[in-house]
Amino acid sequence: MGHKIAVLGAGSWGSALAGVLFENGHTVSIWTRDNDQKEEINNQHTNKKYLPQFSFPEDILASTDLKEAVTGAEALLFVIPTKGMRAVAKQVNALIDHKVTVIHASKGLEEHSHKRISTILSEELVPSWLTGIVALSGPSHAEEVIKKDLTTITAASETAVSAQLTQELFINDYFRVYTNSDIVGVEIGAALKNIIAIGAGVIAGLGYGDNAKAGLVTRGLAEISRLGIELGADPLTFMGLSGVGDLIVTCTSPHSRNWRAGYQIGKGKEIDSILSEMGMVVEGISTTRAAFELAASHGIEMPITEAIYNVVYNDSDVEYAILNLMQREGKSE
Amino acid sequence: MGHKIAVLGAGSWGSALAGVLFENGHTVSIWTRDNDQKEEINNQHTNKKYLPQFSFPEDILASTDLKEAVTGAEALLFVIPTKGMRAVAKQVNALIDHKVTVIHASKGLEEHSHKRISTILSEELVPSWLTGIVALSGPSHAEEVIKKDLTTITAASETAVSAQLTQELFINDYFRVYTNSDIVGVEIGAALKNIIAIGAGVIAGLGYGDNAKAGLVTRGLAEISRLGIELGADPLTFMGLSGVGDLIVTCTSPHSRNWRAGYQIGKGKEIDSILSEMGMVVEGISTTRAAFELAASHGIEMPITEAIYNVVYNDSDVEYAILNLMQREGKSE
Repeated sequence: MGHKIAVLGAGSWGSALAGVLFENGHTVSIWTRDNDQKEEINNQHTNKKYLPQFSFPEDILASTDLKEAVTGAEALLFVIPTKGMRAVAKQVNALIDHKVTVIHASKGLEEHSHKRISTILSEELVPSWLTGIVALSGPSHAEEVIKKDLTTITAASETAVSAQLTQELFINDYFRVYTNSDIVGVEIGAALKNIIAIGAGVIAGLGYGDNAKAGLVTRGLAEISRLGIELGADPLTFMGLSGVGDLIVTCTSPHSRNWRAGYQIGKGKEIDSILSEMGMVVEGISTTRAAFELAASHGIEMPITEAIYNVVYNDSDVEYAILNLMQREGKSE
Repeated sequence: MGHKIAVLGAGSWGSALAGVLFENGHTVSIWTRDNDQKEEINNQHTNKKYLPQFSFPEDILASTDLKEAVTGAEALLFVIPTKGMRAVAKQVNALIDHKVTVIHASKGLEEHSHKRISTILSEELVPSWLTGIVALSGPSHAEEVIKKDLTTITAASETAVSAQLTQELFINDYFRVYTNSDIVGVEIGAALKNIIAIGAGVIAGLGYGDNAKAGLVTRGLAEISRLGIELGADPLTFMGLSGVGDLIVTCTSPHSRNWRAGYQIGKGKEIDSILSEMGMVVEGISTTRAAFELAASHGIEMPITEAIYNVVYNDSDVEYAILNLMQREGKSE
């Protein structure tokens, strides 16, 4: 039996996930703020800016009216930039009057508060109508999911029944969903891998090769784990799909926006012009600041995050910062 | 002060490491079985078959006489295929009469016995002249090391002073060496990553993308860790340079022989013709059998190793084996 699901956000990942849900027999509505995008989805059934290779099934309809999108939905899938998460959650909260499972597939930490996305959601949504909050995360470029390439992904929640529902909603032959109870570890891995992806892009932009990249990613995993464990995550989560898996795909694949932004930084380009040319949210840039501040407040050493922070926010010389990082004295691993 | 070091083996990695040692001010001799290769190194200062882009410094001399190569050496670096390790160690043992540190940079498990390389060496070398045994391993394509690209690598030994000597011998601005006391974990990671690299190549050969590759590598890390922990390794080692780091570089870089062999397997080519066309040892092929047998004898589940084993040794259909692997039921991570 199909369920009714509202996808909030019509970026590349929201569009791809809407396609998976529809294919699995569910009724899917998409909410977007952008009227032109709504018209494009409903009339041309495309999303040229964010996912040009994709054609929406004609029965997926978009709306700019949040109430219309969420009415009757049994599950809500938040796939919007972290920056907008709290405001949209507040609006949604005023519109819901029945039990709903809330899933999110966004990756970031809130500015200033440094909060995880499920924390933001739990603060804004009223418990009486909320079955549970689930983070969906793993190595999953939208561009490959829409080609039905094999993808493995994690559905993490403190509420087992919500993680299981998410698994049931999304799983099919090419989209393999595994449940996990460590939402802290999954969300920290998801958010922070974007910082390391920027670093991997910087390494490539500076002209270094695969050995250097692998060294950086390995150390990146270590510093993500250090902060995650301090925040209560299970160390094993970082060896899983939302940890190592997502790091690998984001740091070694040309599809990643964060990697591409890092590559341009390594080539010496200014951040502002990189971001305005890309015209899309690069979550890793703001996550770098949030993670830097969070690590400092907990006394956790995160040398890669610090190096990227200094390059992006303090105009440090990028070549110097990376060399300094890679050659720092470390007698033992 | 420079040391005298004998490099045993003139493959791509032995040649690159000889170059690093020479550049660091040491006196380096190379031993090879192959007279033509000896002549080429001594006269043309090249190694066209194994490392075509490299020019040896003129002061690195090769010999086919093992005695000549090891005489007066303070350290021996074994960089030969796993298959030949025990026989060469036996010969070396008869030739040494002074204290020597033994380093190896090979990656495999012995056929039938399933022993690690340091175990083979410790069985064949007499303790009276042996200071310690060190495994040198990490994400390090020879092709990038000779370009002085940044490389980070682990020197692992139960004998701290030997690990430290290895660090001193090799470390420089672009070749960063970290010591580690968990030689079991480092050698298991080094050997078994080649199996996963074959798997990553198969995935690509079958036409799957980066999402599938990242999923496979993540599960590969998990099964390597399971076997390693059973054998006494520290779980954290698998998150380090010789674990995740080497997995990433081997599974995502075009330089890897094991990946290339896997890619041809995925394309449906016969193993025998792949190996004869490559004309070089593909350690992962024999390691797959050793690891499969070792896992079975310890009752450890290694689904990727088993799938590759069945494809290589039992003529299983490769597409079926991989689909079966990726779609197996796993309710939770």
